Amino acid sequence: MADLVTFGETMLRLSPPAGQRLETEGELDAQVGGAESNVAAAAASLGTDAAWLSKLPANPLGRRVVRSLRSHGVTLDVAWDDSDAARLGTYYLERGADPRGTDVIYDRADASITTVAAGELDLSVVESADVFHTTGITPALSAAASETTTELLRVAGEADVTRSFDLNYRSKLWSAAEARERYESLLGHVDLLFAPIRDARTVLGYDDDAESVAYRLADDYDIETVVVTRGATGSLAYTDGEIVEQGVIDAETVDAIGTGDAFVGGVLAELIDGSGIDTALSYGAAAASLKRTVEGDVLVTTRAEVEAALNQSTDGISR
Amino acid sequence: MADLVTFGETMLRLSPPAGQRLETEGELDAQVGGAESNVAAAAASLGTDAAWLSKLPANPLGRRVVRSLRSHGVTLDVAWDDSDAARLGTYYLERGADPRGTDVIYDRADASITTVAAGELDLSVVESADVFHTTGITPALSAAASETTTELLRVAGEADVTRSFDLNYRSKLWSAAEARERYESLLGHVDLLFAPIRDARTVLGYDDDAESVAYRLADDYDIETVVVTRGATGSLAYTDGEIVEQGVIDAETVDAIGTGDAFVGGVLAELIDGSGIDTALSYGAAAASLKRTVEGDVLVTTRAEVEAALNQSTDGISR
Amino acid sequence: MADLVTFGETMLRLSPPAGQRLETEGELDAQVGGAESNVAAAAASLGTDAAWLSKLPANPLGRRVVRSLRSHGVTLDVAWDDSDAARLGTYYLERGADPRGTDVIYDRADASITTVAAGELDLSVVESADVFHTTGITPALSAAASETTTELLRVAGEADVTRSFDLNYRSKLWSAAEARERYESLLGHVDLLFAPIRDARTVLGYDDDAESVAYRLADDYDIETVVVTRGATGSLAYTDGEIVEQGVIDAETVDAIGTGDAFVGGVLAELIDGSGIDTALSYGAAAASLKRTVEGDVLVTTRAEVEAALNQSTDGISR
Amino acid sequence: MADLVTFGETMLRLSPPAGQRLETEGELDAQVGGAESNVAAAAASLGTDAAWLSKLPANPLGRRVVRSLRSHGVTLDVAWDDSDAARLGTYYLERGADPRGTDVIYDRADASITTVAAGELDLSVVESADVFHTTGITPALSAAASETTTELLRVAGEADVTRSFDLNYRSKLWSAAEARERYESLLGHVDLLFAPIRDARTVLGYDDDAESVAYRLADDYDIETVVVTRGATGSLAYTDGEIVEQGVIDAETVDAIGTGDAFVGGVLAELIDGSGIDTALSYGAAAASLKRTVEGDVLVTTRAEVEAALNQSTDGISR
Amino acid sequence: MADLVTFGETMLRLSPPAGQRLETEGELDAQVGGAESNVAAAAASLGTDAAWLSKLPANPLGRRVVRSLRSHGVTLDVAWDDSDAARLGTYYLERGADPRGTDVIYDRADASITTVAAGELDLSVVESADVFHTTGITPALSAAASETTTELLRVAGEADVTRSFDLNYRSKLWSAAEARERYESLLGHVDLLFAPIRDARTVLGYDDDAESVAYRLADDYDIETVVVTRGATGSLAYTDGEIVEQGVIDAETVDAIGTGDAFVGGVLAELIDGSGIDTALSYGAAAASLKRTVEGDVLVTTRAEVEAALNQSTDGISR
Amino acid sequence: MADLVTFGETMLRLSPPAGQRLETEGELDAQVGGAESNVAAAAASLGTDAAWLSKLPANPLGRRVVRSLRSHGVTLDVAWDDSDAARLGTYYLERGADPRGTDVIYDRADASITTVAAGELDLSVVESADVFHTTGITPALSAAASETTTELLRVAGEADVTRSFDLNYRSKLWSAAEARERYESLLGHVDLLFAPIRDARTVLGYDDDAESVAYRLADDYDIETVVVTRGATGSLAYTDGEIVEQGVIDAETVDAIGTGDAFVGGVLAELIDGSGIDTALSYGAAAASLKRTVEGDVLVTTRAEVEAALNQSTDGISR
Repeated sequence: MADLVTFGETMLRLSPPAGQRLETEGELDAQVGGAESNVAAAAASLGTDAAWLSKLPANPLGRRVVRSLRSHGVTLDVAWDDSDAARLGTYYLERGADPRGTDVIYDRADASITTVAAGELDLSVVESADVFHTTGITPALSAAASETTTELLRVAGEADVTRSFDLNYRSKLWSAAEARERYESLLGHVDLLFAPIRDARTVLGYDDDAESVAYRLADDYDIETVVVTRGATGSLAYTDGEIVEQGVIDAETVDAIGTGDAFVGGVLAELIDGSGIDTALSYGAAAASLKRTVEGDVLVTTRAEVEAALNQSTDGISR
Repeated sequence: MADLVTFGETMLRLSPPAGQRLETEGELDAQVGGAESNVAAAAASLGTDAAWLSKLPANPLGRRVVRSLRSHGVTLDVAWDDSDAARLGTYYLERGADPRGTDVIYDRADASITTVAAGELDLSVVESADVFHTTGITPALSAAASETTTELLRVAGEADVTRSFDLNYRSKLWSAAEARERYESLLGHVDLLFAPIRDARTVLGYDDDAESVAYRLADDYDIETVVVTRGATGSLAYTDGEIVEQGVIDAETVDAIGTGDAFVGGVLAELIDGSGIDTALSYGAAAASLKRTVEGDVLVTTRAEVEAALNQSTDGISR
Repeated sequence: MADLVTFGETMLRLSPPAGQRLETEGELDAQVGGAESNVAAAAASLGTDAAWLSKLPANPLGRRVVRSLRSHGVTLDVAWDDSDAARLGTYYLERGADPRGTDVIYDRADASITTVAAGELDLSVVESADVFHTTGITPALSAAASETTTELLRVAGEADVTRSFDLNYRSKLWSAAEARERYESLLGHVDLLFAPIRDARTVLGYDDDAESVAYRLADDYDIETVVVTRGATGSLAYTDGEIVEQGVIDAETVDAIGTGDAFVGGVLAELIDGSGIDTALSYGAAAASLKRTVEGDVLVTTRAEVEAALNQSTDGISR
Repeated sequence: MADLVTFGETMLRLSPPAGQRLETEGELDAQVGGAESNVAAAAASLGTDAAWLSKLPANPLGRRVVRSLRSHGVTLDVAWDDSDAARLGTYYLERGADPRGTDVIYDRADASITTVAAGELDLSVVESADVFHTTGITPALSAAASETTTELLRVAGEADVTRSFDLNYRSKLWSAAEARERYESLLGHVDLLFAPIRDARTVLGYDDDAESVAYRLADDYDIETVVVTRGATGSLAYTDGEIVEQGVIDAETVDAIGTGDAFVGGVLAELIDGSGIDTALSYGAAAASLKRTVEGDVLVTTRAEVEAALNQSTDGISR
Repeated sequence: MADLVTFGETMLRLSPPAGQRLETEGELDAQVGGAESNVAAAAASLGTDAAWLSKLPANPLGRRVVRSLRSHGVTLDVAWDDSDAARLGTYYLERGADPRGTDVIYDRADASITTVAAGELDLSVVESADVFHTTGITPALSAAASETTTELLRVAGEADVTRSFDLNYRSKLWSAAEARERYESLLGHVDLLFAPIRDARTVLGYDDDAESVAYRLADDYDIETVVVTRGATGSLAYTDGEIVEQGVIDAETVDAIGTGDAFVGGVLAELIDGSGIDTALSYGAAAASLKRTVEGDVLVTTRAEVEAALNQSTDGISR
Repeated sequence: MADLVTFGETMLRLSPPAGQRLETEGELDAQVGGAESNVAAAAASLGTDAAWLSKLPANPLGRRVVRSLRSHGVTLDVAWDDSDAARLGTYYLERGADPRGTDVIYDRADASITTVAAGELDLSVVESADVFHTTGITPALSAAASETTTELLRVAGEADVTRSFDLNYRSKLWSAAEARERYESLLGHVDLLFAPIRDARTVLGYDDDAESVAYRLADDYDIETVVVTRGATGSLAYTDGEIVEQGVIDAETVDAIGTGDAFVGGVLAELIDGSGIDTALSYGAAAASLKRTVEGDVLVTTRAEVEAALNQSTDGISR
């Protein structure tokens, strides 16, 4: 049974090469990505026994997701949707270059996951985990996905599994008001929270500095550990009444998508491994920096590579 | 104003290279295709002034459709959907190789066209055409698309525009019973019918040979010209009490998708050009054979090339 | 009828990927580009009704130019050359990397456009335009192209169409002395001049600062508006006795070719739209910066994107 | 624990596109393949719980093998070689076209598997299987690999696991005389033998028709079931005193490599599923025919697809 | 010094992938090919010491030709054209598929070779050869190329070098009448003639069977050996009063361009090696069949492979 | 006969595109590279008559090396290995991006060159050269390669050929102690030494500044000229009692592999051309900077381009 269990949507990602446009390019790179499976894969690359729960269409695209996650070393527990309406969510990614922004077009409405029910999933996988992780994207997908999120957090809580949650607000899926209401009902059932500072401010209305936001979130919702991420400024964690800070490790960016998920994966892998939050944040920072150097949503790496990044010991070519 | 006006859905087509599988391939070829725009493009390549009416999402994928059809020389009258739910229908194509069949996965539910209304389109484009063409796919997409089909046929009829219709039954969109009911209400408003023999039998229940099917369809629905297509056996047309037959021109198949649409495009181009049905069928057969030699849904050719295929005058390399 | 009409040569552009050499690379990227059609396409992407006049070989390469420009939304009026000598001009582009310069090899001698005559073109397209635009490349191509340039400027002038001209000196086509003589005879028939500062100095001998060059050009040739472009220093315009300045919008450069044409396209689109020269220059700057972020000679964009670049409102990933 | 356990070498396969030569091609397609893992993957695609035992270099190439096999749904038990000499065997494949033959260049000497010892592997995986499968390639690799083969067959035998063996003679690895001596010592420890007729004749000296070869092999070595494969002529099995024959299912060949392994995988999957040898052979034939339609060593398919091939129910495009 | 010296034009060949059209494809495959250098390269691959004389533009495209031919093992003696007008001839190749023919678009007018003069070349290379070879394409290029052809044949004749000539009529370069006149003046200076039967009939007016054509050509122009090629019917040679016939070796065609040149290269290599005409023709047939299996104008092979093709000993995969 | 003769191993280099990982990428770029042949090719591109001696497997991979080096203008004298064990050394290159380092995986054990003997090579090629060059990689490959290195240096010395040597320490091939011992026995037979400062310190134990290292190396081993290279700090040479310094020419790095070899090639080309060490170092610096702008191990350039880099005269696009 897996130590880390995640739950959420994984999509097909289609993208033209850098410098090419979705309007014109004839060849699209096809990959698979989703916040929660990205976390599971990043943790697995660091040695964590990680699993992912979801619902997928019973067709080649659904099987593609399975193949991809298996290749990253993630164990799967998937409910198969063989209805006529079964579909895999898709997103189109067009990389920007200043002053042109990166563009993401979601085509994920009515994906199979939007009909998921807790009864379709193997709850014992959740019960036997060390950490159960999901994000604010999942409850935004549909009423059914939202209910299943609640139910899995409940199951995890009753089994004394650490419940991890990343706010991950997506303005293309719901309004800030809708998200706030839902977050407020969920945060009481969370033990470890990842809160991007922008989401904490825009959605939850915390107009403070990061440190205070961490403290107040922990206090307001009785959360054991709150990790606030601040993009290029790095992250900090509040736990046991103390603040731990972690800077960003500079990286040459090949593909920025999935950086936050690699960070969470690194943190969770290290916490599960028994490290303290300070070490965990540093592994998260290293994982995030490495993710930026690789194409795709998912961090492909090894523990040795993460530790080399941490030690900045990678100058030159080894031969 | 265009001589040929078509109406229907155009999708993004995503396909791995031949011999590769959707489950595993990292690069997908992206093209644009749809029965009615394929017909318009094929006719345009033969010199017809052709237009296409539809509704598209106001995003890069919608603009991609516009770019592609414009490049084929088709004039567009498009209603733009800028709602949050706007989407372009997609289909995945995996080429087969015996004994593995070609697989098509539709992901077209709730595409922008499903909300189309006649009021969004420029009906004067229809009124000033020689021929208005649509297919049995369009009414299968949604109630709105079905109503708009009826309305455009009505507008065409009142303006004495020849109304052309291809049964094009798609079992993944509706049942044979549903299709039959709809076809029966539409066929009374059609002047030129393209009927694949399989559709005539499976859906409309004509258990006859092709000649009788053509005659009976013409008779039952008072259709001026009925063209029955029979795959490798070729086509025949019933008009003015006479049957005209046309064989298939053998082709080395690179991509079979769109063969039927190229046939229709060739026939319509030639009829609009003033030829009789016998000549029109032969141009259709040549266009269909050339389509098979080219990748993609759409026939890319010239009138000279079609005539060379007709005259089988293409042995060897000209240099 | 189009609001902007341009006239000139469009070539096939063949280029190896960045970091590869023309001597060794097995796959060449094939695109279509030419100063005047680049301008038309850039303006069309901003919503201008734009047309392009030229002469092309009646073969697949000529048709390729047509397809490409149509896809960018440009209307075409093309004289087809079906002589044995018909050819499309070609250029090879090898992207540099410091200290290796970008290399352009022209193979454009005796292209079909070099035989163009005004009588082959539909002059009513010019007469009904708001702006007629061509560049200093066209008269450099051949005596016939030069005469046709004169004739089209004359037709435009008589129809009170604004005559726009970009010096665009190409040292590989003619000497500075030859160019100067020709420019001097043409500039009296120009209402709006785009003058790269380097060309104004090297070819026309204006050894002044940009402001004075603009003033003197306007004065010497009685030109209503003179826009002087200065590369990274930005542009300025002299009109109605006043100077307007515009800085450069910083861009991450993917492909620098066509930057100047995108600038001109942006300026013309906005002037045709009714804006003043200051607004027009800013749209030109935004269009130029966006062009740098995209592969190919031609700017592929939308008005919304240009305005976002103008407002620098593109930080981060929208999702 | 897995129902099917295989043991052997998996290599990196590098191949130019069809029609290109190893001497000249700049891009090589990289895949992973090996007889025994191909069998495991084919069986897994049919729903068998399949595992693969081996030894791999502790580097990105070794991890690539792991990723690839996991993606095919195969469970792995791998001994990692982190010595300086660790290497992954490689083979170069150049597809032929008559009269040019397909060329395979092995570069597999001293691969990590050549140092494998039974003690490095988890023998309980073998003991709990239904079927243990290896081939004549493995003992040809090195003395250590040969001893480990003997040991694993012994372990399987003692645990009453069905021992399956495919002769798979490779003339580039050893002489017929060497192979014969080794085969003769191994065949007494085999319950299910796959014998290509060419190997039975060339190596083991059975100069009979296929039926007699099957009978004599079963009799000489006391093997419960002997399957003789005859290329285009199909296969036959001798078991319980009876002969069962199975024809070949015609296929359009995209890539012939791995056809035999897909056959064995199909047979084993079906036997493990509880079918008789006749049904098993038919699934093997269907799996083999499907393999030919897909690029790569490994069959990527589903049970549904295999059954469709068996029923020849794949004419046309389903849409 | 080389044993075989050839003289002629080599061009850049640009082609879309099979099934794609020149009008639409974004990536063109770039290679180098020309009848006489194809012959030299084919002979070199069989072990002949082969050289090629020509004139090339002093730019990356000219250097590309040099690199490519050197890689095939051909020695070069090239006059470099560093004039402004220097250019490399180009041709576009679009592979057909029945009923669409293969299309070749030449863009070779005024290539640097059209200004070649004998004085620019190292004539001692010709004088020391065993065989000097050129084709009917070279004199068709320009008056200068035609004169140089005459001059090199004269130099070869005076040095007792065997003068080999392939009619290679190209209707896109000159009329049959022009070609005939020129051929008639050249054939008296030829010792070994390769005459495609179609050229002998269309251009030279020999309306006979192949055998008579060979005899009459030898007789009319006092040519020692005449090889008549007849496409799929094979070839025959007349020499010393006798006829030798050679069939075609069946091949799976990947790329038919250059088949005739590979044939000539095989024949010349073998004659230079001291074989009789019968053996030489068989090597030519094998070389031609192998050429068809490889992309590009040039045969990439080895003597061993040619001999295997000759012995039809290539069934199956060797491993 | 060649002016520069080099001796060493050339390998197949396989690399995924930048941003992709060896673990996952399906297409590997295949090139050919080796320190000594890189030097020969760089010198040849500058006009030097350069040759390369080695031993290669008699298979398509060995022939690939020959083709590649010939295309760079290098003459070859190769001993062919047709034994069963013949193999070409391979290396895998994964480009890094901070903080991920570039990774090189060697798979070169037991390559054919490891069995090379001086008797297999044409020693007259060495004897007639101006400069004989090899590197510290070659003696590290095997005892036989080491002995052959000694022997070729002896032959060169006796023929008064300048003996050039680059330390080129490779920690993956041997320990510093082993290397030191071997270097110490070789350096007495060297006239021109290239010493990376890191190697001089780590391996030979010179803990001085570059100037002193150069002086001491020259003094300790009686070497005429010692060039010390210091990465981004540039190089310096000690000769005739004087120190010459040379800075680095800044470059936009596309591929850093082979930079040092291009430097050596530039220096040697210029020395052979008769220049002094100061000019030679500057050409080396220019060659090194250009190498960084091109994909692959080998510098593809021209003398004109090197001189332009030297004169920093490459701003802008020439057209």
